[in-house]
Amino acid sequence: MGFYFTLLPAMDKPSPTPRAIVFDAYGTLFDVHSVVAACEALFPGEGRALSQLWRTKQLEYSWLRSLMGRYVDFNVVTQDALQYACASLRLEWSEATSTTLNDAYRRLSLFDDTRATLEQLRARQPSRKLAILSNGAPDMLNAVVTHNGLMFDLVLSAFDAGVFKPDPAVYRLACQRLDLPPAEIAFVSSNGWDAAGAKAFGFTTYWINRTGAPGEALGLTPDRQLATLSELLAL
Amino acid sequence: MGFYFTLLPAMDKPSPTPRAIVFDAYGTLFDVHSVVAACEALFPGEGRALSQLWRTKQLEYSWLRSLMGRYVDFNVVTQDALQYACASLRLEWSEATSTTLNDAYRRLSLFDDTRATLEQLRARQPSRKLAILSNGAPDMLNAVVTHNGLMFDLVLSAFDAGVFKPDPAVYRLACQRLDLPPAEIAFVSSNGWDAAGAKAFGFTTYWINRTGAPGEALGLTPDRQLATLSELLAL
Repeated sequence: MGFYFTLLPAMDKPSPTPRAIVFDAYGTLFDVHSVVAACEALFPGEGRALSQLWRTKQLEYSWLRSLMGRYVDFNVVTQDALQYACASLRLEWSEATSTTLNDAYRRLSLFDDTRATLEQLRARQPSRKLAILSNGAPDMLNAVVTHNGLMFDLVLSAFDAGVFKPDPAVYRLACQRLDLPPAEIAFVSSNGWDAAGAKAFGFTTYWINRTGAPGEALGLTPDRQLATLSELLAL
Repeated sequence: MGFYFTLLPAMDKPSPTPRAIVFDAYGTLFDVHSVVAACEALFPGEGRALSQLWRTKQLEYSWLRSLMGRYVDFNVVTQDALQYACASLRLEWSEATSTTLNDAYRRLSLFDDTRATLEQLRARQPSRKLAILSNGAPDMLNAVVTHNGLMFDLVLSAFDAGVFKPDPAVYRLACQRLDLPPAEIAFVSSNGWDAAGAKAFGFTTYWINRTGAPGEALGLTPDRQLATLSELLAL
């Protein structure tokens, strides 16, 4: 019987060694809730609530604008989401508030294991490309990457697709710019919906589930679920 | 000077009398939070939290699946959203729970003013079409309309577009089936994002803002904002 099995294609065929690792940015490499402190300084006692509603509306608006065919860059979505979140929580919004908090978005902290994981992935296989593929606008991404002193082979923005993730046009940017088929790209995201979108597109997908959240019930299962970014090093 | 003004087109030209009024269903005619009681009966003390998270994920999943090109009908989206919501709140999900709660969704209550408003709109201008355009699956819509004994000229489902609102393909169904241009259709929704999508498509849009929520910051303003459905009768 073993004989026959070896002739059959394996059901769980491991995907080929990825020739590029593409990371989502916000929530995956950079901690979006590190704006809590800036929110708290402006609105004592409301920092966490504001930060969470801001992020929720930022995502909603990116999806809604994509569906409506009304793309604007992520700076605008982020500012609009902040304005709604302030209004909803009855916090006073002003241009100055908007500038201060959007600026915090350009100086997001790294997660504890982001820097070391990226450095070790680079050191182990220098020929393998490391990239970012994010809904963020190019200037926002450049700012936060530079602020944290990170180095990538490519930093790709949904801006070039004129639509936001999880529209397949955004994931396709990575294939085009890396000149690789989806199966040779490993995609890493801590956003369950993003991992689902990447899986739907055809990437080998790693979902970094830091909080032990339930899987998104979108009919798509990531190839691997990891509790930290650094667990990528064990694969 | 008055002479010149009368020759110029009015800036706020009133839209032509609508030849059809198209209503969103869930949250607009039918109160989605009327499932709270059913949730509460199954999970005492958690009814409101479950109902709210269920609705939030139902919307998210409809948008995400639309963007991913992975449409499934609203029964599936609703069941998936319930499963996620139960997992997230650490409530025990089972097939029986799912059946019971999805069944409640087919017997949603009307808002207090729904029936009288529809009847009076019909009585005032019998030739004007009254329709539903909803993300709901045809069987779900038929069930909840029949349960409440309502009558419409048309009940249109996103099912026929294979994508969910606010994708313009869904709003286009109303034009096709009513054989009317967007400007001759009044669209009524209590969902701010839906009113924005309808406005983007070109309908004259009425946002029923029952809770005094802030306007969605999506760059589109509904033609009118009303506090109740019955205020339609004053226009």
